[in-house]
Amino acid sequence: MKQTVRDLYSNLESLGQQTVTLHGWVRNHRAQKAFGFIDLSDGTFFETVQVVYEESLTPDFSAVQKIRIGSSIKVVGTLVLTPDMKQPFEVKADTVELIGDALEDYPIQPKRHSREFLREHAHLRPRTNLFTAVFRVRSLLTHAIHTFFQDKHFVHVASPLITTNDAEGAGQLFQVTTLDLDNLPRTKDGAIDYGKDFFARKANLSVTGQLQAEIFAQAFTNVYTFGPTFRAEKSNTPTHASEFWMIEPEMAFCDLAMNMDVAEEMVKYIIQYVLERAPKEMAFFDKFVQKGLLEKLDHVLKTPFARITHQEAVDKLLAAPVSFEHAPNHRGDLATEHEKYLVKAMGGPVFVIDWPKDIKAFYMRLNDDLETVAAMDLLVPGAGELIGGSQREERLEVLKERMRAMHVPEEELWWYLDLRKYGTTPHSGYGLGFDRMLMYLTGVENIRDVIPFPRTPRQCEF
Amino acid sequence: MKQTVRDLYSNLESLGQQTVTLHGWVRNHRAQKAFGFIDLSDGTFFETVQVVYEESLTPDFSAVQKIRIGSSIKVVGTLVLTPDMKQPFEVKADTVELIGDALEDYPIQPKRHSREFLREHAHLRPRTNLFTAVFRVRSLLTHAIHTFFQDKHFVHVASPLITTNDAEGAGQLFQVTTLDLDNLPRTKDGAIDYGKDFFARKANLSVTGQLQAEIFAQAFTNVYTFGPTFRAEKSNTPTHASEFWMIEPEMAFCDLAMNMDVAEEMVKYIIQYVLERAPKEMAFFDKFVQKGLLEKLDHVLKTPFARITHQEAVDKLLAAPVSFEHAPNHRGDLATEHEKYLVKAMGGPVFVIDWPKDIKAFYMRLNDDLETVAAMDLLVPGAGELIGGSQREERLEVLKERMRAMHVPEEELWWYLDLRKYGTTPHSGYGLGFDRMLMYLTGVENIRDVIPFPRTPRQCEF
Repeated sequence: MKQTVRDLYSNLESLGQQTVTLHGWVRNHRAQKAFGFIDLSDGTFFETVQVVYEESLTPDFSAVQKIRIGSSIKVVGTLVLTPDMKQPFEVKADTVELIGDALEDYPIQPKRHSREFLREHAHLRPRTNLFTAVFRVRSLLTHAIHTFFQDKHFVHVASPLITTNDAEGAGQLFQVTTLDLDNLPRTKDGAIDYGKDFFARKANLSVTGQLQAEIFAQAFTNVYTFGPTFRAEKSNTPTHASEFWMIEPEMAFCDLAMNMDVAEEMVKYIIQYVLERAPKEMAFFDKFVQKGLLEKLDHVLKTPFARITHQEAVDKLLAAPVSFEHAPNHRGDLATEHEKYLVKAMGGPVFVIDWPKDIKAFYMRLNDDLETVAAMDLLVPGAGELIGGSQREERLEVLKERMRAMHVPEEELWWYLDLRKYGTTPHSGYGLGFDRMLMYLTGVENIRDVIPFPRTPRQCEF
Repeated sequence: MKQTVRDLYSNLESLGQQTVTLHGWVRNHRAQKAFGFIDLSDGTFFETVQVVYEESLTPDFSAVQKIRIGSSIKVVGTLVLTPDMKQPFEVKADTVELIGDALEDYPIQPKRHSREFLREHAHLRPRTNLFTAVFRVRSLLTHAIHTFFQDKHFVHVASPLITTNDAEGAGQLFQVTTLDLDNLPRTKDGAIDYGKDFFARKANLSVTGQLQAEIFAQAFTNVYTFGPTFRAEKSNTPTHASEFWMIEPEMAFCDLAMNMDVAEEMVKYIIQYVLERAPKEMAFFDKFVQKGLLEKLDHVLKTPFARITHQEAVDKLLAAPVSFEHAPNHRGDLATEHEKYLVKAMGGPVFVIDWPKDIKAFYMRLNDDLETVAAMDLLVPGAGELIGGSQREERLEVLKERMRAMHVPEEELWWYLDLRKYGTTPHSGYGLGFDRMLMYLTGVENIRDVIPFPRTPRQCEF
């Protein structure tokens, strides 16, 4: 492999006074009369390299002086340690070769661009400091999650994305079809003939891989999914995207308490993983994106996550010396203001467990009080709900009863019921929204700025 | 975490004569008059554990004798090393507790089931030896690929799955829509009004992440995608699925030769990774699925991959002492019989490079002969094409000319052209079909048997 900027920063001592060869892009360029400075980035490391050239340069000093920002170049030169300067080294160029020119109208100039402008230039924004940092951390976070589960011998399950069932009953689905919409086939009675569609029935994009993960947990004990999921919600908010990635571990012979143990350990592991491997990026976020970010994360690392029931949480809210806009309610969901108060009052991340059954999904395990289910939401400072999970209803008759009450059709989920007929187990799992976790880690406030090419209502460019 | 079968096999020496606790499913059960044997699997390890119980068992010997295959149980007992027997140890049970019964009609009995039968029971097939092995290797392969690229500091890119362009011009796309098909909105002139669709235009599922990966390579130098892709091909073959995972690395400042170096290193790395971590599973495949599998893979590991041009390959075929069903053609594609002959004649894996431009995609770099493009296909013994890649056309005018010739609309790919306007670089990449790689690694011949819940024409159950 070629030498990279990362190699230089990782092996500075041994490379001093050595000849190095770099390929990259010009982030900045200050050409003086008799010399010049180029900030070169190859994207392998957060920091750029300062390249210094003088009139002695080959092939052509004056041509090099004209190299524009955004151009790709090849530099051969000597690495010189500069312990007294801001940067630990610079490269004194012997040759600078232009590989790919950047036209004069190159939109990414060394100045502050608005996030909105950069979203419209999503194909160029990875070349900025902010997005270099965001997308490298995104990549590290991806590997952190796989490594956490693989080290524990969890089996990764590629849950299907095209599906014929609507697990959450959310209803906001993207339909997937190969029918010719200009010429829809019809049955005798005039309905659309889905027998002629690709899958011979109506299909949509999946909103979760959980139900399929449960299948695998009933064979491998510990499994996880990590893949894209879809929501056709027409909400233009900073936290909603139509296509996003989810992590969904599922564990057999596992109750709600063990489920929370794994979730807590995972959150701490991935924070630690990223802090260790992207210190420059994380310092950048702390300085320019969210002041106090590192302190926030450090606090999460050091604090045991609290656990309280939904009832205790609402009691606490009702007793709070605060007037909330939404009244806390023992039968209702928590509002954002409630979540904020709770994490503050509890001094850190908190699992709220045992939720009223009527506001939770059909597959959550009914508690002995017959009123609540063994669900858990993890609330964290500065982001509200980060994880949602539950122990699953493993008792066939109780599950059927819940499905009837919540109008979930049994015939679609015959295989899900089979899991309760053949060797059912107490089992649990949770879902972590990958992109929201990345927002939490970086302090970036809009989900459009942590997804390479976000899909939102009326937006599907690139 | 709970004790698992994997823990036992990994720490046998220290666990001898110790009390162990296991949770799992009954794979087999032989109840005798005064004692019984249960094969217990918890899916964490390929091998089962033999549990022996006697009349002294608590809570109830006769109840335990009736436990059916497929049931979930909890066993507490003593681990006894049995160095003279087939299995290295057994567990003498003190208590066996039934957790979840399996109804009498449990479909997975300890006998040979046909693959077709098991596909119809895709929710239960992970509980069989074959699929335990396949899906654990699938999971390991997933991590092998991430680890290979992450160790080299490649940045993972989550390329979008919903898209408005058809990168390959393949045309066999799944449409994604939230329009009500029973009540399609129309424009004044009667056409479907896609302005009212979710993305305000016609959208489909992506067939590749390559073009978006190129965007990221132009910022990070080395990147890779690893995610699902879709093809709405109505072909019912053992190697086609409608939803499958692809790995697409993309590297800036990288020519075709370096591209092949990375591909070869990756293939060898992931084979080695899986052989080391799943020896039991791989031995099982070698014995029961594809005789000679281990030898095949070992040969790939040890052999430098050959490289020949398409022209040389066709010359070789024309000179071969074999009569092919399809005549080899300097302007045409290679048939399966040609691929088979070539890997045999070359003594192992072979990259075929420099293909006729008319049969390859618009983005492949035109060679100086103006007739061929810098493409490469990797052919391997026993599978034909495993990888396809190319150096990409980095020259704006040449690319535009190729797009015109191949009727690829410029206006849809304005951002792709921008990459050639602003700091273009020689760059290359390739695509590896994940599921086909898994078939190659396991010897399993039908793609439906390496995907947890395969999607194929008229099949979208589970």
